[in-house]
Amino acid sequence: MSFNARTDLAIEAREMYFENSAIATEAKGIEAEEDECDFGIKVTRVRVVDEEGGKALGKPVGTYITMELPNPNETEQKAYEEACRICAVELTKLVGQKVNGTALVIGLGNRNITADALGPKTVDSVLVTRHLLEYMPEEIDSRLRSVCAISPGVLGVTGVETGEIVKGICDRVKPALVIAVDALCSRRMERINNTVQLTDTGVVPGAGIGNRRMAIDESSLGVPVIAIGVPTVIDAATIAGDTIDKIIENLKENAEENLPLYKMLSVIAEEDKYGMIKQVLKPDYGDFVVTPKEVDSVVENIAKVIANGINIALHEGITLEDIDRYR
Amino acid sequence: MSFNARTDLAIEAREMYFENSAIATEAKGIEAEEDECDFGIKVTRVRVVDEEGGKALGKPVGTYITMELPNPNETEQKAYEEACRICAVELTKLVGQKVNGTALVIGLGNRNITADALGPKTVDSVLVTRHLLEYMPEEIDSRLRSVCAISPGVLGVTGVETGEIVKGICDRVKPALVIAVDALCSRRMERINNTVQLTDTGVVPGAGIGNRRMAIDESSLGVPVIAIGVPTVIDAATIAGDTIDKIIENLKENAEENLPLYKMLSVIAEEDKYGMIKQVLKPDYGDFVVTPKEVDSVVENIAKVIANGINIALHEGITLEDIDRYR
Amino acid sequence: MSFNARTDLAIEAREMYFENSAIATEAKGIEAEEDECDFGIKVTRVRVVDEEGGKALGKPVGTYITMELPNPNETEQKAYEEACRICAVELTKLVGQKVNGTALVIGLGNRNITADALGPKTVDSVLVTRHLLEYMPEEIDSRLRSVCAISPGVLGVTGVETGEIVKGICDRVKPALVIAVDALCSRRMERINNTVQLTDTGVVPGAGIGNRRMAIDESSLGVPVIAIGVPTVIDAATIAGDTIDKIIENLKENAEENLPLYKMLSVIAEEDKYGMIKQVLKPDYGDFVVTPKEVDSVVENIAKVIANGINIALHEGITLEDIDRYR
Amino acid sequence: MSFNARTDLAIEAREMYFENSAIATEAKGIEAEEDECDFGIKVTRVRVVDEEGGKALGKPVGTYITMELPNPNETEQKAYEEACRICAVELTKLVGQKVNGTALVIGLGNRNITADALGPKTVDSVLVTRHLLEYMPEEIDSRLRSVCAISPGVLGVTGVETGEIVKGICDRVKPALVIAVDALCSRRMERINNTVQLTDTGVVPGAGIGNRRMAIDESSLGVPVIAIGVPTVIDAATIAGDTIDKIIENLKENAEENLPLYKMLSVIAEEDKYGMIKQVLKPDYGDFVVTPKEVDSVVENIAKVIANGINIALHEGITLEDIDRYR
Repeated sequence: MSFNARTDLAIEAREMYFENSAIATEAKGIEAEEDECDFGIKVTRVRVVDEEGGKALGKPVGTYITMELPNPNETEQKAYEEACRICAVELTKLVGQKVNGTALVIGLGNRNITADALGPKTVDSVLVTRHLLEYMPEEIDSRLRSVCAISPGVLGVTGVETGEIVKGICDRVKPALVIAVDALCSRRMERINNTVQLTDTGVVPGAGIGNRRMAIDESSLGVPVIAIGVPTVIDAATIAGDTIDKIIENLKENAEENLPLYKMLSVIAEEDKYGMIKQVLKPDYGDFVVTPKEVDSVVENIAKVIANGINIALHEGITLEDIDRYR
Repeated sequence: MSFNARTDLAIEAREMYFENSAIATEAKGIEAEEDECDFGIKVTRVRVVDEEGGKALGKPVGTYITMELPNPNETEQKAYEEACRICAVELTKLVGQKVNGTALVIGLGNRNITADALGPKTVDSVLVTRHLLEYMPEEIDSRLRSVCAISPGVLGVTGVETGEIVKGICDRVKPALVIAVDALCSRRMERINNTVQLTDTGVVPGAGIGNRRMAIDESSLGVPVIAIGVPTVIDAATIAGDTIDKIIENLKENAEENLPLYKMLSVIAEEDKYGMIKQVLKPDYGDFVVTPKEVDSVVENIAKVIANGINIALHEGITLEDIDRYR
Repeated sequence: MSFNARTDLAIEAREMYFENSAIATEAKGIEAEEDECDFGIKVTRVRVVDEEGGKALGKPVGTYITMELPNPNETEQKAYEEACRICAVELTKLVGQKVNGTALVIGLGNRNITADALGPKTVDSVLVTRHLLEYMPEEIDSRLRSVCAISPGVLGVTGVETGEIVKGICDRVKPALVIAVDALCSRRMERINNTVQLTDTGVVPGAGIGNRRMAIDESSLGVPVIAIGVPTVIDAATIAGDTIDKIIENLKENAEENLPLYKMLSVIAEEDKYGMIKQVLKPDYGDFVVTPKEVDSVVENIAKVIANGINIALHEGITLEDIDRYR
Repeated sequence: MSFNARTDLAIEAREMYFENSAIATEAKGIEAEEDECDFGIKVTRVRVVDEEGGKALGKPVGTYITMELPNPNETEQKAYEEACRICAVELTKLVGQKVNGTALVIGLGNRNITADALGPKTVDSVLVTRHLLEYMPEEIDSRLRSVCAISPGVLGVTGVETGEIVKGICDRVKPALVIAVDALCSRRMERINNTVQLTDTGVVPGAGIGNRRMAIDESSLGVPVIAIGVPTVIDAATIAGDTIDKIIENLKENAEENLPLYKMLSVIAEEDKYGMIKQVLKPDYGDFVVTPKEVDSVVENIAKVIANGINIALHEGITLEDIDRYR
């Protein structure tokens, strides 16, 4: 693979596979389907069927569902409600069966860095019921299931691996399902803050920013783990690489007059462009990760979509209006 | 005891004991001493020596140290530094010995309710080092000890008993000492937001607001637990009861002219005034807990005093200036 | 008037008038009417017709409309929408006619003190259009009217009288209507954070906390000024006075057995109880103003009701859903 | 000029001039000097002497002082204090004379977008005294001068040109000096959030993000206007252009083996690369402006440096410790 930009999204790994292979056919071990929904919302389901597919995309075996939301920041009420509903439907499919027992929602990331606060902000809007069902079961709407939620902080702030904290809590709470929400890294500026990925493969906290940590997944926790994420950052090298690609593409279209330039740039594109850019940027930019200036309000909005997707999926026949009432 | 106002402070329990007993001598099983320090800071150490003392004050056996800070909100730099230093000295005395191993600081309370955010805000300013000592021990200042810190949220928000979460984390981190920081309830308006209590008896999260929960103490966690708290709220019934007391006192001083009124009010004072007030206020006020309007900035400031007290006490010969550097 | 508790609400001034007069008839120069609306919302309209009425209630001549919202913090979507709608209807009645020209919304109060942040938070949710109508009029929904909004800060933070800043802005913007939103002081705990007062008499910024300042009203600005406020604080002396009243009331009901006590307390009630309490509390409490512990989330919610009331009232046939879309 | 990246910094305009001219001599009408200070702080003073210099750099005639602070986020106390001191010294030089009368500090930018909140955050830490000197002059430290401060919001939020609001306030307050603080745009990632520019040429609010607005300068307000800014954002096209430059530079160093590629890329560099990149990025990125992920805490820190620079410069012999006391 020549252009190995950082991304946490399976659809982008798949795009990169297409870009780097001559033919536009799916890699072996990969299945994919796309749905166009109302309000311009697009759902893509990528299944990494086996190890071979996993190698092709650089992703663990499992299912990756992506919702792309146009203009999440200026969405009108109906589009917002539809986004919540689709998120709930896809989450339900991914879980595959009714949850018997408690669901534990984990808000990963650092609450004090806006671009990393998606998890904690989502948790703030999750309808938490476990304590009510335990202490006053008779007073509770029978449609509510047992849900608890915690934002454990990040290693740099707590001094403890987030995976350790989650494991410790799971040992006490014994959930039947864990849903971990985290901010991701994309390779396309146009996906920042408007794309939601749901996967049954779990998550490695802080992986998006270059560290290896203890995973939060079924093998570490012993229960199914769904990870939900939104790309909120992109690294500077990816922006640069993307731009060179676009210049080349542009030149190709007017190939006659730009032939020599196009050829030369193509040479870069065929080599490890991302590595070269990284190398060149290193002294000044390091692992520079950036986020759009407007990140504050956008993260707030998309966290609500995810929280309500979770609320509708976990409880039984609960509507957005019910959620408002229970809050 | 006639006036049984709600308080989490041992010095107030002791004051109430004096008010309710004819004589001004210490209860059996209680020892106390007071220090006047620079900048008007006053330190009171109350020791509940045995069960008899515990019964007299309604507090578990242990040591309760109170720092009263005049004007915490307008404090100048030097007074602030002295408050941090005294907090460190008293905390060190209370721990009694050098901590071998990791210290875990727990920020109790709800980050989104200012009057309850003391714990999380303190944790935000604690110098966390455990991960550095683990992953890059050779690069770390040798004076630093292993410290980690987490704000687990509150039952109403997480759906999990805070004690359960802390227990789960302790099982993984295996700290040698736990320090739990929480907002408290006082019975005197003049102590709100300017009094710090340190105790080796632990804490029951949410106890201040009328619920019984799993304790965070040595018997539940198996390691010493220091609780540090600041009263940030007072209940409406206490304000009312306090006022009636003051009116009576006032009338007594001019007893000649007010004799009949004084007599009558004294009758109330001799009965369960707090209970009566609670009863009377109930339909409208419920368990109404209030906080001064200026709570936002004051909590911020006093959280920093506690955090720096912890920082200086736990690490080895670290100064406030060092702390600024490490941050 | 014996009990002269601090309040910014005309309905409370009227209540105090009834309490202090033997008969339950309206004061001369006062007209009042009450409406019970859906979802338990209660609307009271008090008109101070002339100077005599103004003297009886201690309020300037004008109209004071109060909306009392049960449980604003747990309100369901439909109750919330009804509250916005009623707020819009009452505001429209108060303005009396279509606004020709720009409306300027002023968010009074200190954004960094939660209990004082109602104004700035409201302004954050007002649909601002003046710049769009000026720079791109052809692209704008024809139902939108020209609205601008600013939060000028408070004297203690800016060093400038808020009235001066507002006057300076009015001289440049030349609005046809000013709406000033501010936090108020109530004498009843049960009204804190769930009562909205609208009046055509303007407002004196900071008046609620004991200072006299330059008014923001029609006479100072030369255009009609509507003030909208919510009581978010109550002073400690009022809580105490209220409690003594309730004890007396309680004793009266069981008068046989409590006759002497009742008589005695009635003596206090007949004198200047509030002044006496203030006097007694002064050394310790000063002008202690308190707010419920949960103030943070409640102010957020009620600010949205007011903002949407303003949005619906000022623009032409705009719905809540439209507002979501324009944002 | 071939590479016309967006920047608000005069030192970057000067760098671009050098890059685009064959020789490394200063443009006509430009004077510059550099100081290396303690703690790695670097001060550069660029004077645009006349219109010719102004044309060369694309900046109005005036003085531009830049402080570059290494690692503003991890700074130790002493480096922080030195930064405040240098900021005060340079500000004093720029003002040129003692201020007789009131200084008005304006915090430009949107408080709710972190990358744009530098101005409002600075204003939050400015020592405001005008009201004290007016209402209780005899109680005030004689070293204090009259300072007031306001954050007027941004056009998109208020609906009013910021320049109009400032003009309206100046008409009432009649300051002798205006200091306007704003977030800027840089063309170099390595300057984001650690560079302070002070200039006597004033500022055009919102100019950094592509709109033309009413200026806040001596000619619009009638009093001297100092603008202080920190670059907090960079546009995506600049990152890409920068990277291509660095690749070319890199290739040049190993020119033998890369000769053809180097030549080709140089062709791009000689044309309007920034324009080409903008063109290519437009459909997806638009005017995409990004900020480092860690922007939240960094802006907080550097706002304090500026606020204290202002505090020390405006008052008479006031130290950082005095400032802590007055707060």
